[in-house]
Amino acid sequence: MLLAITLAATLTSGHRAAHEAEILTEFTRFLAIPNVASDTPNIERNAAMLSEMLKHRGVATQLLRVEGAPPVVFGALDAPGAKKTITFYAHYDGQPTVASDWTNGEPWTPVVRDGRIWARSASDDKAAIVTMLVALDAGSKPKVNLRFFFEGEEEAGSPHLQQILEKYAALLKTDAWMLCDGPVHQTGRKQIFYGARGVSDVEITVYGPARPLHSGHYGNWVPNPIVLLTHLLDSMRDERGKILVAGFYDDVAPPTDEEKRAIAALPPVEEQLRAELGIAVPEGKNLNEQLMLPALNLRGIASGSVGAKASNTIQRDATASIDFRLVPNQTPERVRDRIEAHVAAQGFHIVRDTPDMPTRLAHAKIAKLTWHLGYPASRTPLDAPLSREVADIVRETFGDVVRLPTLGGSIPMYLFHDASGAPVIGVPIANYDNNQHAPNENMRIDYFWDGVELFAALFSKLGR
Amino acid sequence: MLLAITLAATLTSGHRAAHEAEILTEFTRFLAIPNVASDTPNIERNAAMLSEMLKHRGVATQLLRVEGAPPVVFGALDAPGAKKTITFYAHYDGQPTVASDWTNGEPWTPVVRDGRIWARSASDDKAAIVTMLVALDAGSKPKVNLRFFFEGEEEAGSPHLQQILEKYAALLKTDAWMLCDGPVHQTGRKQIFYGARGVSDVEITVYGPARPLHSGHYGNWVPNPIVLLTHLLDSMRDERGKILVAGFYDDVAPPTDEEKRAIAALPPVEEQLRAELGIAVPEGKNLNEQLMLPALNLRGIASGSVGAKASNTIQRDATASIDFRLVPNQTPERVRDRIEAHVAAQGFHIVRDTPDMPTRLAHAKIAKLTWHLGYPASRTPLDAPLSREVADIVRETFGDVVRLPTLGGSIPMYLFHDASGAPVIGVPIANYDNNQHAPNENMRIDYFWDGVELFAALFSKLGR
Repeated sequence: MLLAITLAATLTSGHRAAHEAEILTEFTRFLAIPNVASDTPNIERNAAMLSEMLKHRGVATQLLRVEGAPPVVFGALDAPGAKKTITFYAHYDGQPTVASDWTNGEPWTPVVRDGRIWARSASDDKAAIVTMLVALDAGSKPKVNLRFFFEGEEEAGSPHLQQILEKYAALLKTDAWMLCDGPVHQTGRKQIFYGARGVSDVEITVYGPARPLHSGHYGNWVPNPIVLLTHLLDSMRDERGKILVAGFYDDVAPPTDEEKRAIAALPPVEEQLRAELGIAVPEGKNLNEQLMLPALNLRGIASGSVGAKASNTIQRDATASIDFRLVPNQTPERVRDRIEAHVAAQGFHIVRDTPDMPTRLAHAKIAKLTWHLGYPASRTPLDAPLSREVADIVRETFGDVVRLPTLGGSIPMYLFHDASGAPVIGVPIANYDNNQHAPNENMRIDYFWDGVELFAALFSKLGR
Repeated sequence: MLLAITLAATLTSGHRAAHEAEILTEFTRFLAIPNVASDTPNIERNAAMLSEMLKHRGVATQLLRVEGAPPVVFGALDAPGAKKTITFYAHYDGQPTVASDWTNGEPWTPVVRDGRIWARSASDDKAAIVTMLVALDAGSKPKVNLRFFFEGEEEAGSPHLQQILEKYAALLKTDAWMLCDGPVHQTGRKQIFYGARGVSDVEITVYGPARPLHSGHYGNWVPNPIVLLTHLLDSMRDERGKILVAGFYDDVAPPTDEEKRAIAALPPVEEQLRAELGIAVPEGKNLNEQLMLPALNLRGIASGSVGAKASNTIQRDATASIDFRLVPNQTPERVRDRIEAHVAAQGFHIVRDTPDMPTRLAHAKIAKLTWHLGYPASRTPLDAPLSREVADIVRETFGDVVRLPTLGGSIPMYLFHDASGAPVIGVPIANYDNNQHAPNENMRIDYFWDGVELFAALFSKLGR
């Protein structure tokens, strides 16, 4: 680690020493502007300040607008003789928050305490944005054309992202997307992620009698919708996470040898997680091996009441809510089709609306399915030239790198890949305990300076 | 049916013709006193009026009291030379109600409309009480000693009934209990019921991670409590109502030949119910055959959220609430023991409180079970002498009788049987569409007069 510290000191420590207070002042000023995507006046104030911050570094700046969306703040900084263009993505909006839930200051009144800055978006993603700009100030000499793409509605689900990528396709031509979002590894090691799982969800409602009935007078004769639902659910997934739906795994791309090697090299977290979460036996052995597979998660189930409000009733219906995680080369549409074929094969008549009496009387089992198709997974090969180049730069800078073939969670990396055909690689800087999306969001200040160092290294060395 | 009308006219039509207005006035005065069991001042007013009504008929009356309970209004009317004593049970309290939910008058402001009297307890059970007293007025000449036992907290779950039966055991010595509660058959035919199923319930909670987790980052690795619960539930009961727990049916007394004959003779209601409830295929063919069996009903299930509030989370725990219906000779204790043996055989460690971390880490699957043991079933043989006698009297009086071996629901008939060893038989008079326990409770006036006729026939003919 001595090597890492020495190297890290080389690029930006002089600039930091001379400007530390000024840098943190700019960061806290930026954090002080409320940034919920639907709060248009404040979102525009964020975009205006961010534009000024870019221009101040000599970055050619423009706002990319489509109807009804916060602007994307776009910046371009060409390098003489550059052969490649690399686009850095982050978002400047933040999750809605309730001030009274915060114990460390208020969401948009940044506080420095215990070596952290506490504020909404301190980590997710304003730290990434500011550290990139500080890296430019610190004298990075880019060998590639840099592009900055700062989105203003990521926490609202990026409803206009595809439209913006399409409208500005010519402007956004790039050789790679670098996503500066998310946390580093739980061990504190710097982490690169090369993919994310896709996501879909479906709500399934099955039906019993047209009105709730006394379980004594009608039990054993009237079909019980909870029983129909639990049997349907159990036909779909076993207790070890295996999905039992015919053909479900047909589209699943197996991990490459390079991905297997990267997973084998990941720092083990299983024992720590087991102890922390109180789990005697997990569903699978290796967390990251499991995340390479699709998942069917039962996220909610409801019918009647439990506890003091339970009554001896046969309920009218029962509902389960399921989220799916997708991997290459699954598509939400094929997942939907296979699930629906499976539900039909269990004897259910599939409907889209609450069934009327003639429908009820025509079918022994009825299931209403409501889909949110979501989006597919994305994965950039770990052995692509740029994938290796980024890993090498991080390793040189910090002495170590964790290469994650995919996040278990979902971010729409596929949109960037589909729009450009370019690789998409995640380079996060935030501490993993940053309370992202929650009250008391925070950014460790030492991780902030590491972020400056990371971006300075990427800007200086990519394309070397 | 001409025969029935002619016979019915014989006993009480003269009295009715002479006193109709006066009878209904007494009934509505009684209905006008609010009668929720916890409303002590009004419950005492009900008891006082009822005592006066009994004394007015020459019935020796006393209030049976135990600490903290509404009094039982008890009456005794001996017949010269009688060899038998028959006790008629009804309750004078009613379900709580919300006046604003009533569209036909107010709960305790009786209204006569459309051939019905609308008021709380009009059918459940004040009609039974008043019609018994009118039957005495109409000149019944009992050949048995009559006892009246009018409870004041049945709708609150009869928490002191057992204590009262024990405290007054000597006074309450009887050769039979007649329960004047519940509705007649859906077809309008007069009905006798000879039993009721018992009832128990259990709440089962199973556990996932110690805190809710992101389904993307941990799905496929962290055990999902909903999945564990649905698999456990499906191991307990199939989709046709069959209970799969080892030994569960060992104690079940099969129907007697007489019970089978009675069931075969019941008016079929299945097609009407199917159409009304929107059921294409019921769990069993014959409703009343099914009600002779024990039942496991899933009455509620809950974990996470469905609908707009669903989030991509692996939940901490999942809970199901189950009610059981018991038949002779099952006991709640043996049902509990068999269910717990089954849950343990599925690999679950059974706990009584939310598990702590060491417990979680020691067991792959944990289930918390919370029981309300309830009470057992009761069934009086249909071919017992009194069972036949009551059926014969009803048949003579109305030309027809429906003999129900058991209610599907549960009432604590076993308490009366256990306290006395005597047979317990239900003789209801209310219309089945009486909105019992609901807003707009009502009693059909023609059924009220049939009730007078029924009790006059029983009083005059029992023990003949």
